[in-house]
Amino acid sequence: MRLSVHSDEHFMRQALREAEKSRDLGEVPVGAVIVCDNQIIARSHNHTEQLQDVTAHAEIVALTAAANYLNSKYLTGCTLYVTLEPCVMCAGALAWAQLDRLVYGAEDPKRGFMRFGKALLHPKTKVEYGILEAESRQLLQDFFRAKRQS
Amino acid sequence: MRLSVHSDEHFMRQALREAEKSRDLGEVPVGAVIVCDNQIIARSHNHTEQLQDVTAHAEIVALTAAANYLNSKYLTGCTLYVTLEPCVMCAGALAWAQLDRLVYGAEDPKRGFMRFGKALLHPKTKVEYGILEAESRQLLQDFFRAKRQS
Repeated sequence: MRLSVHSDEHFMRQALREAEKSRDLGEVPVGAVIVCDNQIIARSHNHTEQLQDVTAHAEIVALTAAANYLNSKYLTGCTLYVTLEPCVMCAGALAWAQLDRLVYGAEDPKRGFMRFGKALLHPKTKVEYGILEAESRQLLQDFFRAKRQS
Repeated sequence: MRLSVHSDEHFMRQALREAEKSRDLGEVPVGAVIVCDNQIIARSHNHTEQLQDVTAHAEIVALTAAANYLNSKYLTGCTLYVTLEPCVMCAGALAWAQLDRLVYGAEDPKRGFMRFGKALLHPKTKVEYGILEAESRQLLQDFFRAKRQS
């Protein structure tokens, strides 16, 4: 089966590429893209160490970039693809943006927003997860293993 | 009784001044200051309309400024004063920053993080509220009343 260039898997693979950029900079590898009308309008990856700023998660940076592109703080009609389950901060930001759809790869039982449930998101936001989960998880596991050994 | 320049009320009054700046720009009036060793190291107010960016809450902008000042993403030993109860996004950001103490003015039953409880914050963060609550609430009420009439 040929993979559609507009499939969730296609866009998640783009988010994974972003996550690899984080890894190459010594950052916890998490990447995100925001898609509107089948077009990527923002790409980002985790920058917290480089910027020494806890708010510089892939999702937050991507939200700001997408809002700038659209000249609108509301991302209705947009999908955010992110390799790891968003944290509470990022879920709260996605709620304000009234995101249409959130798709994430690996779950994050310790830090992910789902500990508190979907009530943290906007009621209209649809959620899907597990897309390229193995790849996202592997990237994180390899990163932390290398860190422990260094 | 003379008011100490290092009292919670003193610093909250500075946050209220920031909130007034938001109001003057047509933004929902919320202001914040971050204090470390009795010194204000960051001041900010809500910028969401001007920047068309849902992440530009007073607290997020102040966190980034304080981290920049300290050259550290951790705000251990710091107190954040904010005129309104933080939302879920901001509570999540404060958790990552390992803030020592959060002091807020007015409660926000609809949008505030306390709907989900203190578990959204870092376990070490102490919380106090109700400081200059009437002034903070009045500022918000006046703003929304003027908005409805315009």
